Amino acid sequence: MSPERFAALWRSLLPIGRLADGCGYLRRSWTPTDLGCREWFVEEALDRDLDVETDRNGNLWAWLGDPAAGNAVVTGSHLDSVPNGGAYDGPLGVVSALLAVDLLRERVARLHRPLGIVVFTEEEGSRFGLACLGSRLLTGAVDPERARQLTDDRGGTLADAMTKAGLDPAGIGPDPGLLGRIGAFVELHVEQGRALADVDAPVGVASAIWPHGRWRMDFTGEANHAGTTRMADRHDPMLTFSFATLAANKAARSQGAHATVGRVSVTPNATNAIPSRVSAWLDARAPDAPTLAALVDSVRANVTERAGRDGTGFTLTAESQSSTVDFHSGLRDRIAARLGGAPVLPTGAGHDAGVLAAHVPTAMLFVRNPTGISHAPAEHATDADCAAGVRALADVLEDLACR
Amino acid sequence: MSPERFAALWRSLLPIGRLADGCGYLRRSWTPTDLGCREWFVEEALDRDLDVETDRNGNLWAWLGDPAAGNAVVTGSHLDSVPNGGAYDGPLGVVSALLAVDLLRERVARLHRPLGIVVFTEEEGSRFGLACLGSRLLTGAVDPERARQLTDDRGGTLADAMTKAGLDPAGIGPDPGLLGRIGAFVELHVEQGRALADVDAPVGVASAIWPHGRWRMDFTGEANHAGTTRMADRHDPMLTFSFATLAANKAARSQGAHATVGRVSVTPNATNAIPSRVSAWLDARAPDAPTLAALVDSVRANVTERAGRDGTGFTLTAESQSSTVDFHSGLRDRIAARLGGAPVLPTGAGHDAGVLAAHVPTAMLFVRNPTGISHAPAEHATDADCAAGVRALADVLEDLACR
Repeated sequence: MSPERFAALWRSLLPIGRLADGCGYLRRSWTPTDLGCREWFVEEALDRDLDVETDRNGNLWAWLGDPAAGNAVVTGSHLDSVPNGGAYDGPLGVVSALLAVDLLRERVARLHRPLGIVVFTEEEGSRFGLACLGSRLLTGAVDPERARQLTDDRGGTLADAMTKAGLDPAGIGPDPGLLGRIGAFVELHVEQGRALADVDAPVGVASAIWPHGRWRMDFTGEANHAGTTRMADRHDPMLTFSFATLAANKAARSQGAHATVGRVSVTPNATNAIPSRVSAWLDARAPDAPTLAALVDSVRANVTERAGRDGTGFTLTAESQSSTVDFHSGLRDRIAARLGGAPVLPTGAGHDAGVLAAHVPTAMLFVRNPTGISHAPAEHATDADCAAGVRALADVLEDLACR
Repeated sequence: MSPERFAALWRSLLPIGRLADGCGYLRRSWTPTDLGCREWFVEEALDRDLDVETDRNGNLWAWLGDPAAGNAVVTGSHLDSVPNGGAYDGPLGVVSALLAVDLLRERVARLHRPLGIVVFTEEEGSRFGLACLGSRLLTGAVDPERARQLTDDRGGTLADAMTKAGLDPAGIGPDPGLLGRIGAFVELHVEQGRALADVDAPVGVASAIWPHGRWRMDFTGEANHAGTTRMADRHDPMLTFSFATLAANKAARSQGAHATVGRVSVTPNATNAIPSRVSAWLDARAPDAPTLAALVDSVRANVTERAGRDGTGFTLTAESQSSTVDFHSGLRDRIAARLGGAPVLPTGAGHDAGVLAAHVPTAMLFVRNPTGISHAPAEHATDADCAAGVRALADVLEDLACR
C-alpha cells in the first residue's frame, strides 16, 4: 500500500461535506451530506463485490464471505463529523478498511472467517446529542423509544430523520442476531493527541479508554450594579467560576489527568452587571477511576472553600459518567506483537469500539497525528502514515481471518 | 412630608411594569409599559396645575412658572428600568420631585425662578443600548442620525418606536433653546451602594461621578478535543480568561477601584471542546483617571504575561471611556450646608445629571439604600428615608428658587 494508493481513495471522499477553506467539515447524520457519504461507501463496497446491507439502526455493513457463518472479523468506523471537524476522525477508519480488504485479497486466496466493514451512524452525537448512537442501539445500550425522540437543534426527531431517509424508526433497537455474528471488532482511528508523534511511531494500539465524566457546576451570587457596588460588598459568582476553571486545570496537571471547562452560561451576562449566576461544565478524564474521583473531589473541596470566601454558592452535580473500557487483552497483545511492538496507549475519547468492547473482543489501532489536534480542521495524518495504517490493519485482519 | 404621604404617591406608580414576585420591574422606553408610566406622570403633573410638554427628544417636562423666563430650577430623573430592575432607580427622583413641589407650595407663596420637573427618556439604555439617551440628545452629546438608527433586540429602530408613540423622529437632536432655560439641575436618586447605610445617614450629596470605561478582552487559543489533548499540549483561552477575571478583581481591591467581568462569550462553548476563543468585557471605574489607567495597565500586563504561559493570545481594546464628572462645587457645598452637613460622596454610576453637568450647574442627592443593591429587585429605600429625601429636595429647591 503506497501513500499514493491510499491518497487516491482518500481524496474521493474529501469533497463531501467540506466547508470553506480552513473551516473543516460538517457531516451530520441523515443530512444530504451524510447520505452523500453513505452513497460513496456503498459504491466503493459494490465496486469490490462486497454484499452491502443497512441494519435496522441505520448502520451500513459490507461483507466479504457469508456473515451468517458467524465469528466474523469486522472493522470500520464512522463518517459523521463534529461541526468544523477534521477530515480524519471516522473516515480514516472506513477508507482504511476498504483498502485493507484490497490488500488482503492480493495477499491471500481465501479467508477462513467472514470479513465485514461497518459504518456506524451518529458516532459524534453532533446532530442528536448522543455519541455512538448507532453502536449503542445495536448493542442495546440505549432505549429505542428514548432514541426515537432525540431532537436536533431544529427540533426534528431521529425518528423523522430516519423516516425521511427511507428507514423505519419502529425497527431500531438491539440486534442480537447481527451482534452475535461478530467474532472480533477492530477500529482504526486517527490519534487524537501527540503520543505517537512523541515516540516517532506511525501506528499504535489502544490499551483502554479512560474513565470519563461530565459535571455541572452551578455558581450563585447576588446580581448588582458593576459601577456602584463596593468590592467588599460583592457576591460575584464569576470569581468563583474563574477560580474553579484554574483549580480543575491545576488538579488535572498534578494528577496526570485531563480536565476542561469549555462551556459556560452567565446570567444576566451584561457588561455592567455583577452576575447572579454562572453555570459551567467540567469534563474530566483520568487513567483510572480512583484518579478521576480524586480529581473531582479536589475540585469540589477547593472551589467550595473559595465560594465561602467569595460569599457565593457552589454545587457540583454529576451529569454523566462512564467507566474504564479495557480492550481485549489477548487481542491487543497479539496485534502489538504482529505489528512488531507498536506502542500501546490509552485514549481519553469515546468510540464505537468502546461500546462494542462490552460484547465482543475489540481492539483499536491509532494512526499518528503530528498536530495532535482533534475535532478541528488542523487534525492531520500524512499519506505515508495512513498507508502504514492500512498495512497494519491488513496485517491484523489477515492474522484474525486466516488462522 | 410624612412617610405615609410619600408612600401614597409612590404606591400609585408601583403596579406599572411590575413583574412576578421577586422579579422586579421591566420598563423599557416607548413600550406600552413606558407609555403607562408617562401617562401616570402627566396626570400627576396636571393634578398639580403644572404645564406639561414633551420635548423634541421625547423627554417630559412639567413647569411651575414660565420657563421662558429662563434660569429655571429643574429636578427629576427617569422612569425606565433595566430588565428585572428595582422600583427605585429613576422613579424615586420623579416621585420625590412631584412631592417636593407640593411641599414648596405649602411653604412659600411665590417662587422667584421657574421650577421644572423632567422625566428623561431611555436613561438605562436597556432598550436601545445607549444610556442617558434623552439627556444626550438634548445636550447634543449624541448624533441624532446615529440615535435614530439604534435598534432594540427585535431589530426595531428608535425612529420606529418614536413614530409609533406619535413623535416625529426627524425632530430629535440638540435643543439649545430648552437647555438654555435651565439655570440649575438637581437629580435625586436612590443610592446604589451602602455608603450612607454605613454612616447612618438618610440623605447624601454627590461629589462626582467616577471615570469609567469598558474594555473588550479577546482571548484566542486552539480548539481541541477535551478528552484526548494532553494538558501540556493545550492552548486553552478559558484559562487566560479566568486568570484575567481574578486579576481584575485583585487589582480593583488593591487600588480602591471597581472592576467587573459580567459578560463572556465562548466559542464553540461545548462541554467536550477546548475553546478556540473567549471574549469578555471588563467594566472598570475608579475615583480618578490615573487610578483607572493604572488598574487597566496592571490587568493588561498581568494577563499578557499569563497568556504567554498559556500559549494563548490576548488583546485588550477600549470600547468606551468617560471622564470624571465633578458636580458644581458651589451648588454641592451650598446643598450640603443647607442639609446640615449631609455626607458628600462620589458614585460609580452614570446619570442624566452627569450629562447635564457639562452644561449647567448640576447636583445630585442620594437616598439611603440599606441593601446596597442596585439594578435588581432587592434595591430598596424605606418610606421614612424617602420622605426625608423629599424634604431635603424641597429644601434645596426652595433655597435655589426663592433667593
